[in-house]
Amino acid sequence: MGTIIANTLAILPDGTGHAAGRHDIFIEGSDIVGIDETPEGFSADEVIDGSRRLTIPGLINAHTHTYMSMMRNVADDLSFTDWLFGTIEPIEDRMEPEDAYWASLLGQIEMIKSGTTCFNDQQMHIGQTTRAVVESGMRSIICRGLVGGERDLDERRIREALRERDAFAGCDRLTFRLGPHAPYSCGPGYLRGVAEIAKREGMGIHIHIAEGQVESDNMLRDHGCTPVEYVRDAGIFEMPTIAAHCIRVSESDRAILAENGVSVVTNPASNMKLGNGFAPVPEMVAAGINVCLGTDGAASNNAQNMFREMGLLALIHKGTHGTPQCISADEVLDMATRNGAKALGLNTGSIEVGRKADLALLDLGAPSLTPLNNPVAALAYSANGSEVTDVIIDGRTVMRDRELTTIDEERVRCEIARICERLGLAQMV
Amino acid sequence: MGTIIANTLAILPDGTGHAAGRHDIFIEGSDIVGIDETPEGFSADEVIDGSRRLTIPGLINAHTHTYMSMMRNVADDLSFTDWLFGTIEPIEDRMEPEDAYWASLLGQIEMIKSGTTCFNDQQMHIGQTTRAVVESGMRSIICRGLVGGERDLDERRIREALRERDAFAGCDRLTFRLGPHAPYSCGPGYLRGVAEIAKREGMGIHIHIAEGQVESDNMLRDHGCTPVEYVRDAGIFEMPTIAAHCIRVSESDRAILAENGVSVVTNPASNMKLGNGFAPVPEMVAAGINVCLGTDGAASNNAQNMFREMGLLALIHKGTHGTPQCISADEVLDMATRNGAKALGLNTGSIEVGRKADLALLDLGAPSLTPLNNPVAALAYSANGSEVTDVIIDGRTVMRDRELTTIDEERVRCEIARICERLGLAQMV
Repeated sequence: MGTIIANTLAILPDGTGHAAGRHDIFIEGSDIVGIDETPEGFSADEVIDGSRRLTIPGLINAHTHTYMSMMRNVADDLSFTDWLFGTIEPIEDRMEPEDAYWASLLGQIEMIKSGTTCFNDQQMHIGQTTRAVVESGMRSIICRGLVGGERDLDERRIREALRERDAFAGCDRLTFRLGPHAPYSCGPGYLRGVAEIAKREGMGIHIHIAEGQVESDNMLRDHGCTPVEYVRDAGIFEMPTIAAHCIRVSESDRAILAENGVSVVTNPASNMKLGNGFAPVPEMVAAGINVCLGTDGAASNNAQNMFREMGLLALIHKGTHGTPQCISADEVLDMATRNGAKALGLNTGSIEVGRKADLALLDLGAPSLTPLNNPVAALAYSANGSEVTDVIIDGRTVMRDRELTTIDEERVRCEIARICERLGLAQMV
Repeated sequence: MGTIIANTLAILPDGTGHAAGRHDIFIEGSDIVGIDETPEGFSADEVIDGSRRLTIPGLINAHTHTYMSMMRNVADDLSFTDWLFGTIEPIEDRMEPEDAYWASLLGQIEMIKSGTTCFNDQQMHIGQTTRAVVESGMRSIICRGLVGGERDLDERRIREALRERDAFAGCDRLTFRLGPHAPYSCGPGYLRGVAEIAKREGMGIHIHIAEGQVESDNMLRDHGCTPVEYVRDAGIFEMPTIAAHCIRVSESDRAILAENGVSVVTNPASNMKLGNGFAPVPEMVAAGINVCLGTDGAASNNAQNMFREMGLLALIHKGTHGTPQCISADEVLDMATRNGAKALGLNTGSIEVGRKADLALLDLGAPSLTPLNNPVAALAYSANGSEVTDVIIDGRTVMRDRELTTIDEERVRCEIARICERLGLAQMV
């Protein structure tokens, strides 16, 4: 069972940068097995005409909460307190577990249609999300959200996460991590307990760190340290860790993150939208930290479109640093692809022989790509995600000519409308 | 000849804000002649089913240079000097007049497809742009770019602008303004000359002011004033003026702009991309200035998509000011619609009886609008422009079911490819 994407303009890794050129890409099973040279014994069942397509590595959304997808545009232009405690949490409290299944599918529809092939998800209803990912065909890291004080390490939640992990041990597309929520929502003893279980079970960690100024102020007052130091001291960084936000990180914090091999996910839209400002991305890169990119949940973005996020990432640091040479289009593409793969320990994120076949094909006739001139710059500065026509994940076509092959879009829309009505959201259609 | 958009979800003005609801919109000739109530003597030739559409006022791109559209993605991540003098100007020098016609059509394709119905354009080849606008059906303000030192007021360029204005005096969609480029490229005597002609001819002004720190520093050194004071002292503000950028404007500058009724166009993508930073939009609004929104040219954006620009505008000031309540979705929509109309003296920018029928219809089934929840927030935070299916300008449908009715898109693409080759641009397709 082989597929060839023939004569496509493709963006391949080229040392620390990227090079675009015409290529034939050979896919067998879940892998890229050849570029330009036909592998021995390869036989093609399908040939995709790539002549009018730009083929890129599938984008990796390194931080989101897909269960929140139906909460887009419900709580905007509000203070953080009114947003979280006044609107989002009351909605979460009314959610039924299966709502998370439909919400995750809704988020995945938007992600696939805009070229994302993999997402790192933190949420409570991991069984529902796992079910949605198994059906959609996406690659996902499913992280059980964990919140607790000093002593109440909730073994039930942990056991649930381990059970899911064991049940899907054979599914290469799914990875399970533990998701201790944040320094401000996890006591030091609780965090130490999570770190010990992660070590015992060989699991990675997905955590929010240093998202806002209040978090840093309270941490200093209550524990005499920074959020980064607090998480390090609990032993969390002894396991592979991906830390979302990291907006308030000092030079010393950045050195700690770099020394411990912690990857940081920056979420520009969410960080601005909630008034938290701009993460020091250029400074983190300079410190040697592996920085990747995420959308965060739809309640604080409100899109799940990595092209929108790449555009923001490429522009905002030029604005804050007063120079057009701060964060290049090449760096942006890396943060949205291979840096994410590195952070999550996945063999994907670039078009190379031996990597997983996670690919997005863009229509070269789209107005935003005409003329194309520089393909990497186009991804960061002129594309919006609607150019994506075909998406391949783990060697399987999940979108062909803009039609999803694994998700019944109309059904998801109907279920979401029903859920929104039950949750009392002001859905206007 | 009447058209009804039946049973559409539409965003109408509601005092200083907006209200969304189900409406029938009646169009006759170039105007909106009724909302919900059938006007006397109205007969419908066409009924558009609006039940699955969100109808919004057409977006107004209040500052661009469409002749630059083929220069997207050719000069990114460069210093301002390398960008302008090393790349853009040498390309401009090689351009032939007719290239501006095709480039303008290219920019207009991207604008129409993303819901823009009107653009304010500054350029050199105004005859070519006029020809493109007459054909496309867009509404446009065509501004002759003017650059000069102390004494060399070039009457030839002015005469050309007046000739075009007189030739198209009957075309309600076209307005002509004078476009003295910027304080740093126009001497004081030259600017005074332009102001006098504008007064004599009753023409408005479109100018760049205070885009970068170097401009302000040099102005203080050479003339002992700010760029805003310099332009005011030349008499420019005695005619209706729209000023692009206004990034370096002090409190006193803002008072001058407000007192003189100068409208400001903010261009967030371009300002960040060239390292010029963030315009003080919240402060300008507080000073009572009419602020509108533009993309700037494709050489410094690199898109001509007002949805991308609305998203940036809604987010960046929350980031710089550290509060989610800075620049609301309602304000963003105003800046992209009725503020632009006010700045340009046009009877459009809102869905009201008696206004020009400039409208964009969005697909309510698009993933980025599912669920919709809050339609105004959706425009600022989750839409990307690809949701637009139909565009009506001056009562005429210029895009129907995503197909342009006035522009031969394939022909434009071919001509642009030919031009890029001649100009030596690295066009990869």
